[in-house]
Amino acid sequence: MLLPVTDDNRLQSPRRVRELGVVVGTLPTGPLNAITDVPGVRVGQTTITGDGVNTGVTAIVPDGWEATLPAAVAVGNGYGKLIGTTQVDELGVIETPILLTGTLSTFRVADAFVSWLLDRDPRATSLNPVVGETNDGHLSDIRRRPITPAHVHAALDTASATLPQEGCAGAGTGTAALGFKAGIGTASRALTDGTVGVLVQANFSGVLTVLGRQVPAEPIDSDGNSCMIVVATDLPLDSRQLGRLARRAIFAMARVGSDYAPGSGDYAIAFTTSRTPSYADRDLRTPFQALTESVEEALLNSLTMARTTTGFQNHTAHAVPHDRISRQHQPADGRSSGRSAT
Amino acid sequence: MLLPVTDDNRLQSPRRVRELGVVVGTLPTGPLNAITDVPGVRVGQTTITGDGVNTGVTAIVPDGWEATLPAAVAVGNGYGKLIGTTQVDELGVIETPILLTGTLSTFRVADAFVSWLLDRDPRATSLNPVVGETNDGHLSDIRRRPITPAHVHAALDTASATLPQEGCAGAGTGTAALGFKAGIGTASRALTDGTVGVLVQANFSGVLTVLGRQVPAEPIDSDGNSCMIVVATDLPLDSRQLGRLARRAIFAMARVGSDYAPGSGDYAIAFTTSRTPSYADRDLRTPFQALTESVEEALLNSLTMARTTTGFQNHTAHAVPHDRISRQHQPADGRSSGRSAT
Amino acid sequence: MLLPVTDDNRLQSPRRVRELGVVVGTLPTGPLNAITDVPGVRVGQTTITGDGVNTGVTAIVPDGWEATLPAAVAVGNGYGKLIGTTQVDELGVIETPILLTGTLSTFRVADAFVSWLLDRDPRATSLNPVVGETNDGHLSDIRRRPITPAHVHAALDTASATLPQEGCAGAGTGTAALGFKAGIGTASRALTDGTVGVLVQANFSGVLTVLGRQVPAEPIDSDGNSCMIVVATDLPLDSRQLGRLARRAIFAMARVGSDYAPGSGDYAIAFTTSRTPSYADRDLRTPFQALTESVEEALLNSLTMARTTTGFQNHTAHAVPHDRISRQHQPADGRSSGRSAT
Amino acid sequence: MLLPVTDDNRLQSPRRVRELGVVVGTLPTGPLNAITDVPGVRVGQTTITGDGVNTGVTAIVPDGWEATLPAAVAVGNGYGKLIGTTQVDELGVIETPILLTGTLSTFRVADAFVSWLLDRDPRATSLNPVVGETNDGHLSDIRRRPITPAHVHAALDTASATLPQEGCAGAGTGTAALGFKAGIGTASRALTDGTVGVLVQANFSGVLTVLGRQVPAEPIDSDGNSCMIVVATDLPLDSRQLGRLARRAIFAMARVGSDYAPGSGDYAIAFTTSRTPSYADRDLRTPFQALTESVEEALLNSLTMARTTTGFQNHTAHAVPHDRISRQHQPADGRSSGRSAT
Repeated sequence: MLLPVTDDNRLQSPRRVRELGVVVGTLPTGPLNAITDVPGVRVGQTTITGDGVNTGVTAIVPDGWEATLPAAVAVGNGYGKLIGTTQVDELGVIETPILLTGTLSTFRVADAFVSWLLDRDPRATSLNPVVGETNDGHLSDIRRRPITPAHVHAALDTASATLPQEGCAGAGTGTAALGFKAGIGTASRALTDGTVGVLVQANFSGVLTVLGRQVPAEPIDSDGNSCMIVVATDLPLDSRQLGRLARRAIFAMARVGSDYAPGSGDYAIAFTTSRTPSYADRDLRTPFQALTESVEEALLNSLTMARTTTGFQNHTAHAVPHDRISRQHQPADGRSSGRSAT
Repeated sequence: MLLPVTDDNRLQSPRRVRELGVVVGTLPTGPLNAITDVPGVRVGQTTITGDGVNTGVTAIVPDGWEATLPAAVAVGNGYGKLIGTTQVDELGVIETPILLTGTLSTFRVADAFVSWLLDRDPRATSLNPVVGETNDGHLSDIRRRPITPAHVHAALDTASATLPQEGCAGAGTGTAALGFKAGIGTASRALTDGTVGVLVQANFSGVLTVLGRQVPAEPIDSDGNSCMIVVATDLPLDSRQLGRLARRAIFAMARVGSDYAPGSGDYAIAFTTSRTPSYADRDLRTPFQALTESVEEALLNSLTMARTTTGFQNHTAHAVPHDRISRQHQPADGRSSGRSAT
Repeated sequence: MLLPVTDDNRLQSPRRVRELGVVVGTLPTGPLNAITDVPGVRVGQTTITGDGVNTGVTAIVPDGWEATLPAAVAVGNGYGKLIGTTQVDELGVIETPILLTGTLSTFRVADAFVSWLLDRDPRATSLNPVVGETNDGHLSDIRRRPITPAHVHAALDTASATLPQEGCAGAGTGTAALGFKAGIGTASRALTDGTVGVLVQANFSGVLTVLGRQVPAEPIDSDGNSCMIVVATDLPLDSRQLGRLARRAIFAMARVGSDYAPGSGDYAIAFTTSRTPSYADRDLRTPFQALTESVEEALLNSLTMARTTTGFQNHTAHAVPHDRISRQHQPADGRSSGRSAT
Repeated sequence: MLLPVTDDNRLQSPRRVRELGVVVGTLPTGPLNAITDVPGVRVGQTTITGDGVNTGVTAIVPDGWEATLPAAVAVGNGYGKLIGTTQVDELGVIETPILLTGTLSTFRVADAFVSWLLDRDPRATSLNPVVGETNDGHLSDIRRRPITPAHVHAALDTASATLPQEGCAGAGTGTAALGFKAGIGTASRALTDGTVGVLVQANFSGVLTVLGRQVPAEPIDSDGNSCMIVVATDLPLDSRQLGRLARRAIFAMARVGSDYAPGSGDYAIAFTTSRTPSYADRDLRTPFQALTESVEEALLNSLTMARTTTGFQNHTAHAVPHDRISRQHQPADGRSSGRSAT
């Protein structure tokens, strides 16, 4: 049953899904439950709103990117403009931070990064920026392409290891997912031998599913529906193993109800801050679980942290009403519960 | 909470999940709710049991395979021995039926198919059999490799367009999934412009999830955990589009709780009986939904149709108790319900 | 033996390799022996020179790109920034012209194309430009990124079906290959059922080999070495078959002496102007031969049509002296000969 | 000009191409100029001839395969039955020796390997044999499938580190390439930091080209034309880098005149005996050159070491007359020469 979404939830404060009593999985989170729990990983964002525009830039900046870091890309559905993939495939590394933005600004964001790097590295004559995007044209006047080099440089220059702003921030300012306003989300899991952290830019279709229970909404008629998933770790994985991780990030989208629509650009890019690969494939089961839990929780955070937003042509995307999520997961005794079982 | 599994369910009769009140998705099924609803698709199986052996052969035989049919393979996790993939990738067709069996018998099954074909086609000097497998070594004395050419030929020669036996049959005789005895499952969806049918050989790990609700079981300590998914359709798709369909078959495994373990061989192969591709990609949304629903239901059928089985070294895999599945999906008014919503 | 390259060849007029007596292969060329022999394919170029800059833009503009055209990409060595690949892989089409430029300008060229399209299509909110590049930083002040939107728009707006300028033109203005000045080259083969045309941007290392005979030169110490190969046809191929064609374009680089260096970005993109795929794979032998011959000849044309060029930091790349190529292929009786045989 | 091939060359003794004055490239060979120059790599072969049969088995057996070795596969043209590829792709390792044979025997060779391993390893319940093939049906009664488990086991059990027999031996007994009788060939290059060795099973079409000079022959009308290339090294490469090496093995086929026909199964599989990857991609230029030279020379050896063979249905494949190769590469002063230059 589709309950009418009232404007009441305009008043609700963004909360992380775990604060709503939803505990995804069984592994412990990192201190911030964020991609920035991975040592050396910083995030910076520029948010651009007003006058029919809701867009921005999100930069994931790992220490040591200048010397390259092992990385891999997984393509779930390639209807997107992710820049930089063939070189990541060939060399198994990233040589830049990872940038996210709105689709029509992808190329100018990449170009702005080139400017930023040329200013810093007088010897640079080639580089392979990695820029992902989703289409925020439902809430943002996308054809205006309002993003300037200054916006990109600000995201890079202000990157910090704190909890990144979730929901309507950076590259998630204008995105919507599963019928609700969405945006940026993040989560992490702390393993005994390292950390897995995830940051998502959620903009895809399907029926929101919270720990197996559907929270339907009217579909948003948007031009595109896509998801960018950035995976960071400090586990000593090589690029092939990071590719295995990245593929499971795509698989994890199903857990929150993605329908993997034919027009979606669903990508994951995974990197590690470790340059000494030494992990056995048979030990990947726990990192895979950490990845899956982190993606599921980051996607939910991207929704519960978002605010109802009205933008381009007075289109509105409603925040998911928190009570539809929380009440079913608040047991009588007040303890928050994980996924229910028979 | 893991309830103790008693032997009571040894007495339960296999039932398809839909008979237990579980309705997956919203699209109508084909007449048999089986891969054999796709016109021209037949299935034959040979089941081998006794003396510590539980294995077999399942043959999916589409009319017209001799003249090749458009096809594509998707690799979810490539820890398996699927034979024939590079040629399917290159030419975009299958030129044989598709055979499924237990892992150590893969090659002799392929060889037996060669024998079968050479007997029928006096000019054949090359062919590309497609043989998939999962490891049934927990319940079957796999090292004995009991499958003979006669078993393979019987599966091919007895293929029919009826409802294939599900659960403990053919290549699913000795498999287990999500902590329970599993096996062969099938399902289909009827669209206005054609049919999508699926047959699975389920043998993978994770936590059984029925319409979002978990039905946990103690994990079965098996040597391998894999899933073969065969997708048939008569929609006029080309091999690239069949590849898009096949990738979503892998994604659909998440809906029943697959954990996509690092040691799993998760593959889907999709083919069409139509040789005149004419489908627009923008129209794939409904076929994708049909595929996703069919895979989810076929996987559930592979479990609810299976019987508790004791095999090699007295290992036992218990059938999933039907009451754990059905009671939660039987509303008070007696109507069966679909996936619950808030 | 490395003969000294004198400045004499500064005076030599650019000539196509066929005018030097070198006949590649046995199939007939199209009327122009150019990619523009494929009906509906036009080429436009903007050349930027002076003040240490030698760079430009080359646009390959097939009629009907707005409605998409079947296409495929092949990656020989992925150390490059080719934009647009994942969507071409997923959907099997291009939806824009193909643009070539110098590496650090790749993203602003893509952005300029977005501007150009937004001006023409008031409904466009997403698009997937395909922009390839090689690194012309040896002869061009690459860090200055001199290419403006006007340069890109001029290449698009002036595209014509005439013989494209070869050698030092457009995206080939500053490139070098096999130790010599290179640039843009083109060639075609006319089959009974259609045409195969090729345009290359040559910038790779190795030892120039003309019909099997080496023409060594001192290596040029450049930052990158890459090759972009654009293949056009009107044969009714689907994207999978175009991929087979594209892979052979990579293989054909060996025929002129490419060493496929680890730092090279070697890509081919093939498209057809036909939207009704109907070609049998068993009939591809002749199109493959046409493709191979066209790539080989286009690469040779990119060299023999280039002029000795001095650019950034007074670096010079010498044109290949024509007499090193022609004299060995001019038999005594004055007839030009093909590849010699024992 | 196609000179008539007389029976005279039935009397010629097989010679390696280097003995004919043909020196491929500039890097030094290993002591044997063979894949067995890589420490720990052994080769065993079983040759089956008579009564219209010319076929066999070639086993490449690296020490330590039981504990897996890093590996990667490259597919040049996937019209072949190479077994084991998806697991090599996923895990980046081989876990068995590599076996080569004739196409219709591929599966029974794989099955025979399973038998061989089960006899040796009482715990084995799963394994991923890698078996390649080409179609030797022109010279061998392929439908008879004469290869038995004993033939396979003999190849494995007799593997040695000596110079493998080239030409008409093992899996090359019945193959032909470039219009001439071909078979098994091998070569190696010794680098300062390790060795690159290659073994080929040559069975493909095109025009034989020796150091750039064509040696045409009438095409052999065979059912298939394929090439299997096995690359061994002890350089500390990871699977991604081995994939880069393997792709260049495909590229190197062009140097001897392969036409990469649409019906060819052209594969390369590369492995290293080192399990501690530590190689920088920027240092791959020399290994790439070593690989390219080794493939070119191994392919030439597969031809010059073969003897004229008459087999199935009295088909004959003629050995390449050595004088067509040697005379042009024997300079007047008697020194053997490399590739000629202008």
